[in-house]
Amino acid sequence: MRPVRVGLLGAGTVGGGTLRVLARNREEISRRANRPIEVAWVAVRDAAKAHDDAGAIPVRTDTLAAVEDPGIDVVVEVIGGTTIAKDAVLSAIAHGKHVVTANKALLALHGNEIFAAARKNNVMVAFEGAVSGCIPTIKVLREGLAANRIEWIAGIVNGTSNFILSEMRAKGLPFAEVLAEAQRLGYAEADPTFDIGGIDAAHKITLLSAIGFGIPVQFDKAYIEGIADLSDTDITYAEELGYRIKLLGIARRAQDGIELRVHPTLIPAGRIMASVDGAMNAILVKGDAAGVTMYYGAGAGAEPTASAVIADIIEVTRLMAAEPDERVPYLAFQPDSLSDVGIVPMADVRTSYYLRVRVRDEVGVLADLARTLADSGISIDSMLQKGVDGETNEADIVVLTHTTSEGQFDEALGRILKLPAILPAYARLRREDLT
Amino acid sequence: MRPVRVGLLGAGTVGGGTLRVLARNREEISRRANRPIEVAWVAVRDAAKAHDDAGAIPVRTDTLAAVEDPGIDVVVEVIGGTTIAKDAVLSAIAHGKHVVTANKALLALHGNEIFAAARKNNVMVAFEGAVSGCIPTIKVLREGLAANRIEWIAGIVNGTSNFILSEMRAKGLPFAEVLAEAQRLGYAEADPTFDIGGIDAAHKITLLSAIGFGIPVQFDKAYIEGIADLSDTDITYAEELGYRIKLLGIARRAQDGIELRVHPTLIPAGRIMASVDGAMNAILVKGDAAGVTMYYGAGAGAEPTASAVIADIIEVTRLMAAEPDERVPYLAFQPDSLSDVGIVPMADVRTSYYLRVRVRDEVGVLADLARTLADSGISIDSMLQKGVDGETNEADIVVLTHTTSEGQFDEALGRILKLPAILPAYARLRREDLT
Repeated sequence: MRPVRVGLLGAGTVGGGTLRVLARNREEISRRANRPIEVAWVAVRDAAKAHDDAGAIPVRTDTLAAVEDPGIDVVVEVIGGTTIAKDAVLSAIAHGKHVVTANKALLALHGNEIFAAARKNNVMVAFEGAVSGCIPTIKVLREGLAANRIEWIAGIVNGTSNFILSEMRAKGLPFAEVLAEAQRLGYAEADPTFDIGGIDAAHKITLLSAIGFGIPVQFDKAYIEGIADLSDTDITYAEELGYRIKLLGIARRAQDGIELRVHPTLIPAGRIMASVDGAMNAILVKGDAAGVTMYYGAGAGAEPTASAVIADIIEVTRLMAAEPDERVPYLAFQPDSLSDVGIVPMADVRTSYYLRVRVRDEVGVLADLARTLADSGISIDSMLQKGVDGETNEADIVVLTHTTSEGQFDEALGRILKLPAILPAYARLRREDLT
Repeated sequence: MRPVRVGLLGAGTVGGGTLRVLARNREEISRRANRPIEVAWVAVRDAAKAHDDAGAIPVRTDTLAAVEDPGIDVVVEVIGGTTIAKDAVLSAIAHGKHVVTANKALLALHGNEIFAAARKNNVMVAFEGAVSGCIPTIKVLREGLAANRIEWIAGIVNGTSNFILSEMRAKGLPFAEVLAEAQRLGYAEADPTFDIGGIDAAHKITLLSAIGFGIPVQFDKAYIEGIADLSDTDITYAEELGYRIKLLGIARRAQDGIELRVHPTLIPAGRIMASVDGAMNAILVKGDAAGVTMYYGAGAGAEPTASAVIADIIEVTRLMAAEPDERVPYLAFQPDSLSDVGIVPMADVRTSYYLRVRVRDEVGVLADLARTLADSGISIDSMLQKGVDGETNEADIVVLTHTTSEGQFDEALGRILKLPAILPAYARLRREDLT
């Protein structure tokens, strides 16, 4: 059979890894795919910077012209970003090419447009590499768990943040110090905003929410809170209460819609998810039939991401000549049967809370705090008072609440902060049981 | 589109779960599959025992005649065993039906014959439910990690054994006591041989080895050691050395072939696999590009297994009209390019060992033991002497070795047991680092 011909856009980390793995495992991949996979060319902005891994493969710099090449079947987009990548992907689709991309930002922001165009042109858009690197999360959710009504998805989907949180906990160091170290080691970018701000995680959980619940991609509705303001004090207190703090992307089917949120989250230390440390990723999925399953592995890196990109190329190769309904729908559900259930506003999200306040150690302060929560209908799960500082006569009080709505909690918090003995600094975190 | 018509063989635990989940999630499943799935009939041995879940669905008792029904497209076999299940599956294939089965014993023993027949008749045989319940391990290995040269697979694939080992460790109880409790709770069968003897785990790792390495199914070559002889003393000592003991199915690409073995195994307590407790399953896979990934969930039970069975029905539905090469090969690799690399004899397997011997506390016993290992070219990683019993003047010595071959270790063990101060009782376990 004639080889499948691939045009590769981008020869950075992932592009280089893709070329290396395709070359190294050529024989094994052919034994699986039944057809050789051949990279026709690599398109980069600056030919001088074309990756060594390109070897004898032609290098071009005319990305937008390249995708029109009638000699290729598949365009693999690993440029990243949402400018030229978007133009290139839409053009590839318009020219009848199948697309493999690892670009979560592109799909989280423009997925609905891209999938609609792909459907019109009868081409596949495969994107396993866009979420959690080598872990086949998209495949698992779209196919492996297809019998289930998905209840929730919770993922550690940003390796940089997880590395920082793991280090803060292990070494008892503050955020800024660990971030600097992570940057030195190459675990964090010079500008780490996307990672530590939760934006990258929100891109990924947005895609998973669409696939899990059969809804359109709605990144603009995601609630996003990163880890930059997280204090190592709260990591320590959480630990004492039997919890670890992880940056989770959460998508949950609630009474009135789908919750879609990213924030630092207390999870019970005994859960297997709590043991996911360093730059690793893990995705928990709760299905009504399967119960809770977890998928764990490297969430980024050249070859782990290449593993997902090449799996997609193999799948596209296999199904190239198939009828559209013989392929798995882009977002798991048939495009005509996407659900219009909305995203729940954050004020209506129901979860439980961790609150740390600093108080002047006066008689009745604990009682006032408890009374204020009770007046708002919020019941207390546990409470911890941390040692009085003799000099300032100040102490920390930590409260874990039972489930309440975010709006209700915020209202109570506003009143707590006005209590006479309560000082202005506080921390408010959310807690999930993951059962 | 006309519904896909399914004939269901067996209405026990998994059959009942399949009927329940198909009914409950009918609308959601149609939105994914683009076509309704209809159970035409349920075939059971004894109609009186037909599961309540069958409801209005016709119940037949003529299993072998039923599979010939020209009105059905797919036969779902959840009878279990290798007698009537084998006849029914082969007959279904001969009559051009696609097959979905959760029967690991059947495929581990007769997979080569069944897949060859299916290929000849151009039908699919899907078997996600045969390994690790709801966890889509087959899909992950056949498709999600298709870019990788697989280095090894290690799985906790028998929930009963894992439940027993977890309880022995948590409660410090001996095997027999925990087994009795597991039987009382329904976690272990009245005749638990298949589970605690490692046979069930060997069925599963045999299937995974075929898919991972592109070799035929070779259950008869698997080395199998169960947990019935495992002492709680060794669980305690392993813990002190920083290890947990799990019953692992292991398939590894070695120098001269594929290792295929099931045995209790020491794994470092810090590995995420060590946190897999109770009846849960987890499969670790090491690929050259992806690195180590893990897949975790319920390995058995009515609805978890139904989750896998129905995912297979949906996939078969989608690809029913597709060309054979548009479907994923049965054993991941194209049938004509299966590898004939052999299974490594156990004596040639290279790993490291845990040895516990009971000694008379005499001068020089430790030196003799260490010298014997050294003479066999086996180097010691660590050694632990456990308290001398004042009455008997006996003590336990525990040795962890570095990597050696099983043959070499057994030879040294033979000589150790002949040393004058060494008593006859001993325990020998294998250790894996899983990195």
